[in-house]
Amino acid sequence: MAKRLHDKLMVKPGKKIRLSDWDPSYNFGWKEEEARAQTEKNIEEIIVLQNILAAEAKHSVLFVLQAMDAGGKDGTIRKVMSGLNPQGCRVTSFKAPTPEELSHDFLWRVHRVCPGKGEIGIFNRSHYEDVLVVRVHGLAPKKVWSQRYKLINEFEHLLASNGTTIRKFYLHISKEEQKQRLEERLADPKKHWKFNPGDLKEREYWKNYMDAFDDAIEKCSTAHAPWFIIPADNKWFRDLAVSSIVLDTLRDLKLEYPEPSGDFSKVVVK
Amino acid sequence: MAKRLHDKLMVKPGKKIRLSDWDPSYNFGWKEEEARAQTEKNIEEIIVLQNILAAEAKHSVLFVLQAMDAGGKDGTIRKVMSGLNPQGCRVTSFKAPTPEELSHDFLWRVHRVCPGKGEIGIFNRSHYEDVLVVRVHGLAPKKVWSQRYKLINEFEHLLASNGTTIRKFYLHISKEEQKQRLEERLADPKKHWKFNPGDLKEREYWKNYMDAFDDAIEKCSTAHAPWFIIPADNKWFRDLAVSSIVLDTLRDLKLEYPEPSGDFSKVVVK
Repeated sequence: MAKRLHDKLMVKPGKKIRLSDWDPSYNFGWKEEEARAQTEKNIEEIIVLQNILAAEAKHSVLFVLQAMDAGGKDGTIRKVMSGLNPQGCRVTSFKAPTPEELSHDFLWRVHRVCPGKGEIGIFNRSHYEDVLVVRVHGLAPKKVWSQRYKLINEFEHLLASNGTTIRKFYLHISKEEQKQRLEERLADPKKHWKFNPGDLKEREYWKNYMDAFDDAIEKCSTAHAPWFIIPADNKWFRDLAVSSIVLDTLRDLKLEYPEPSGDFSKVVVK
Repeated sequence: MAKRLHDKLMVKPGKKIRLSDWDPSYNFGWKEEEARAQTEKNIEEIIVLQNILAAEAKHSVLFVLQAMDAGGKDGTIRKVMSGLNPQGCRVTSFKAPTPEELSHDFLWRVHRVCPGKGEIGIFNRSHYEDVLVVRVHGLAPKKVWSQRYKLINEFEHLLASNGTTIRKFYLHISKEEQKQRLEERLADPKKHWKFNPGDLKEREYWKNYMDAFDDAIEKCSTAHAPWFIIPADNKWFRDLAVSSIVLDTLRDLKLEYPEPSGDFSKVVVK
């Protein structure tokens, strides 16, 4: 049997990571048309399995999405997750922390929105910002952010120990692809509102972000919460890869409709 | 132009309501096949408009679903709302209140999960349970629950004053239809887990619930937060009606992509 994209794209715990060695447009031999058709099929099966996940109410699933600006986080959620039943699926977009959030530890705001049994949680950005933007811009001293990798692993261990399956996606785009996407936002009136001048400033820190991602992925890809590096210059391959991994994650749970809570064989509805 | 289902099914403020006079299987002349096709079309347009709603981030939309057990709340959400982008759409299912929730006023837990700008909120059950199950089973004295209609109207006024469009759906099924659906849950192993023996007990209070719904709908169908009585014995008509009202609600907002936040005509991406 061919190795699954799930296994090909997963970062093995302990593996050294240098994103500059990873090709953001690698397609594993897939052709666009076939990939789009397979993505549709994946989504159909994901929808069926989500229904059983909710019925069984035994497992929680958490997908984390991280990427550079214009890396495709919103697009991936729209394309891959829009078929899901919104009852039982919650997306949380993490912005700059509020004063109340800052008055707690950095995982406090994350913990309270983690998925319950039977639920799928999707994080658009996440606690990883606390070792990415915070590190790149020195928003906290190195002494603080450098301990966070371990704290993150321990936190994710807690979630996993309670039945949460965690899968983390880094959508890997090239600097050139980001340029094209930002230019598209400037050119298309329907995308114009998405353009944020701050993205240009962040772009200057590309190398620093890559270093920060290298470390976050290398230090925090664990057996209970692996990272996946998704070649994301081609949106159709990105969608195929993410939908395949989501599907295999659900399949691996061996979901089953629960047994009835009692013997109702003699029950009569009057 | 034919009158929209939105207008036909809306309960005009001040109208006397007696649900026993409303036919749960009335179809307004629609045939099943046409209705299913129209529902699909409605959903496609809803998805497009949701995208603009999120981009504009000016309006909030709240849909409230209430019904008797097996009335189709879960099914409506799955059928009508599953195409939505889960980013920007949040379903909240209200269960029996927790001790912490009970230590606050009855709208406290509701208020904190209301949709923000650009978001669609969906309530599966809601604050109306506090004038339904609470009234039917005497969980609070009449003196308490009888003031809640006014408190609810005032609370919904607050939401509306801040740009939230509220639409409330009562999925109207007959007692006979409920019997059939409960029997299906008992007969089908895939639905067996949904069967809750407590539903049989609640069924004995059918008449009391109808009285409570009559009052809730009559007293709380306001210009800023109208109730809709959805004939729901036929699932295909229910889905058509709800999707049509959701669509017209979004259309009526005259959504537009926002203007760019500045003049970026000379911006160059380096």
